[in-house]
Amino acid sequence: MTQLLRARSSEITPEMDSVAHDEGLDAEELRRRVSSGRVVIPANPAHQGLRPVGIGAGLRTKVNANIGTSPDLCDSALEMAKLRAALEAGADTVMDLSTGGDLEAIRAMVLRECSAPVGTVPIYEAAAEALAKGADSPADFTDDALFAVIARHAEQGVDFVTVHCGVTRQALDLLRRQGRRMGIVSRGGSFLAARILRSGYENPLYSRFDDLIDIARAHDVTLSLGDGLRPGCIADAGDRAQTEELVTLGELVRRARDAGVQVMVEGPGHVPMSQVRSHVELQRTVCDESPFYVLGPIVTDIAPGYDHIAGAIGGALAAWAGASFLCYVTPAEHLGLPTAEHVRTGVIASRIAAHAADVARGLEGARARDDAMAGARWKLDWDRQAELALDPDVVKAWRRQRMEEGGPECEKDTCSMCGRFCAVRVSAEALGL
Amino acid sequence: MTQLLRARSSEITPEMDSVAHDEGLDAEELRRRVSSGRVVIPANPAHQGLRPVGIGAGLRTKVNANIGTSPDLCDSALEMAKLRAALEAGADTVMDLSTGGDLEAIRAMVLRECSAPVGTVPIYEAAAEALAKGADSPADFTDDALFAVIARHAEQGVDFVTVHCGVTRQALDLLRRQGRRMGIVSRGGSFLAARILRSGYENPLYSRFDDLIDIARAHDVTLSLGDGLRPGCIADAGDRAQTEELVTLGELVRRARDAGVQVMVEGPGHVPMSQVRSHVELQRTVCDESPFYVLGPIVTDIAPGYDHIAGAIGGALAAWAGASFLCYVTPAEHLGLPTAEHVRTGVIASRIAAHAADVARGLEGARARDDAMAGARWKLDWDRQAELALDPDVVKAWRRQRMEEGGPECEKDTCSMCGRFCAVRVSAEALGL
Repeated sequence: MTQLLRARSSEITPEMDSVAHDEGLDAEELRRRVSSGRVVIPANPAHQGLRPVGIGAGLRTKVNANIGTSPDLCDSALEMAKLRAALEAGADTVMDLSTGGDLEAIRAMVLRECSAPVGTVPIYEAAAEALAKGADSPADFTDDALFAVIARHAEQGVDFVTVHCGVTRQALDLLRRQGRRMGIVSRGGSFLAARILRSGYENPLYSRFDDLIDIARAHDVTLSLGDGLRPGCIADAGDRAQTEELVTLGELVRRARDAGVQVMVEGPGHVPMSQVRSHVELQRTVCDESPFYVLGPIVTDIAPGYDHIAGAIGGALAAWAGASFLCYVTPAEHLGLPTAEHVRTGVIASRIAAHAADVARGLEGARARDDAMAGARWKLDWDRQAELALDPDVVKAWRRQRMEEGGPECEKDTCSMCGRFCAVRVSAEALGL
Repeated sequence: MTQLLRARSSEITPEMDSVAHDEGLDAEELRRRVSSGRVVIPANPAHQGLRPVGIGAGLRTKVNANIGTSPDLCDSALEMAKLRAALEAGADTVMDLSTGGDLEAIRAMVLRECSAPVGTVPIYEAAAEALAKGADSPADFTDDALFAVIARHAEQGVDFVTVHCGVTRQALDLLRRQGRRMGIVSRGGSFLAARILRSGYENPLYSRFDDLIDIARAHDVTLSLGDGLRPGCIADAGDRAQTEELVTLGELVRRARDAGVQVMVEGPGHVPMSQVRSHVELQRTVCDESPFYVLGPIVTDIAPGYDHIAGAIGGALAAWAGASFLCYVTPAEHLGLPTAEHVRTGVIASRIAAHAADVARGLEGARARDDAMAGARWKLDWDRQAELALDPDVVKAWRRQRMEEGGPECEKDTCSMCGRFCAVRVSAEALGL
């Protein structure tokens, strides 16, 4: 029984109780939102030690961190370091996107060590198997092999899977007629497109969507309907191929919900600021308020090395407009696999975006921490400022360095920015505040 | 003769020609905007080697980098390193906010080495002089001493000065009646407030605004009307004291323009995302479309160590809404003076915000570089990607490291993120693009 089916039968599950408590919500109200599909709780019963997380309407905006190996860079110690960095920095969920090494063993390790919900993209493993068997292209796997991988992920305890069900023949026809600067930049999307265009057959994740539903329902795996045709540059954002795919995903949301399967929808990608709100609003209507999981989006293409910043701008706008779930972007995006330090930076950048959006949309209690920080700053209370910071370590390290540099001359309650010119001290005295 | 007066007398100055060329605009159109005050060109004739920059309506959004010493951290070699870092990273202007050491000598050095427009906050020097003479408070300077400092900055070649003219008795009365979490966080604002509240006399920068106009007109120094009552936390954003000050600044914009003095207006600070657009629109109407120079704004208070990211979100929103000029925020904000590396990071973050906003508001040609990047990515042309990046060095360093790590197995045209799973290669082949 999925969380959705149990919510519909008026049951408040332990997972709903836990999420309601974390969000400061009434459990019955949360149950209603799960029942309507506007909130999902990706919680595979086979994921031992999971601390459930809710994603969707009226909840705190959540942040996902992608980790994972590639064929060229595969080191399980590094993956564990990235996982720890993600969790310590406050990621709400983690996706294991590994494509190199023993994928099942890496996934088992991630599931064992990660108390947050874990997502995967099963098509990567199907592709890796094909290549391992000597195929020319990562797209050379059979439909059955793909479904077998998805079933294994579900059995293993994966909480949500990205499935690019909307890369249909029709959408690809549209894409080819329309043309595009950057073709397909989703790996899963490109593999499916290659198969469809070579064989003429429909995307199996679309034509056999009922098989997907059966697996998802049996293990309460949340389906994350991937945007295989997402734009790879801001010039391609919002084009007909992308929109056609979104319409298809909307239909599939309905089918999944009708079958009692939890479902969310993935979104771009590369989007100029001016299109972010309309993208989110379109998704909300076309996909019946299914939680929207956006990848960034980054708002310019010219910031490699700093895409976490371009992604924070887009993510903040998207979450403010109603997206529920932000996939982080690290400084390594478009350049290579991230290090643990990149993971940390990426999570913090996305958390800034998520929190700024929660404040902007008036989420109850969201501003309390900002207000407490203002109080600590007004009192020049540096210990409390560190406690309240998204990254306490960086504040503590800074102060430590300052004290060492300052020596006996250093005034404990000012900072090296202003010294005796401290506006807080001058104005507190002048205003008698 | 100021640029404004010359524009009004139908002259297209060499500075207007240069700016029009840089912006891809017709020089006569630019002259009209300067003439109306919607564009300023801060260009003090005494600043040798200045490359003029235009700020305002319909121009590329500009980025300012603050450098400068403090009493606790004063090292001219460090200041030069910060200046070089700012210019190399693409800052359009630089403000020297020094408060420690030989201020006139530091300023002379900055003016000599900086081909970009240079701004200052003269009240800091008045305060430093007072402290050097043994005063208890940095606010213990005379009115005449303050005006003398402003005149010296103008004579020395400073292109624009921040003057907190709107911190009036009336605004302070409002602030005290209203209360505030964080009092006054502008240093200049706090000094003026302390003087006003102690003496009962009006802010000299307001009561003697005509003297300020005389200095500014004589040297074509652009007045940047500072927001001394800007919010120091998002909870204080948009309160009555801040709004009262803005109304006063709007009146002073008119008086400065009438006198032929170029003028812009500074804005906050700490602003939740939901208020950024209305702040900018209010400034535009109340201040007769005077160029708006915003400090960040940062959109949450809980990101010390990462305030350049919180500032990029706010800056992007502000520039999209119509702000013309973004003051950068570095990762050191709220913690201490920035290093050269922080300066570099801060400038890049603000340039991302400025560019994303230029794309969003449809500035002609703004997206061309993004489109070229998309083309380079589609061709997997890494050299061209580096050229087109806001920070080419980081892309080159990354690729170099990748090549070293990859060894003979490394495929030149893929990246360590995807390796053989490269969506671009798979989809280019499949789609025949």
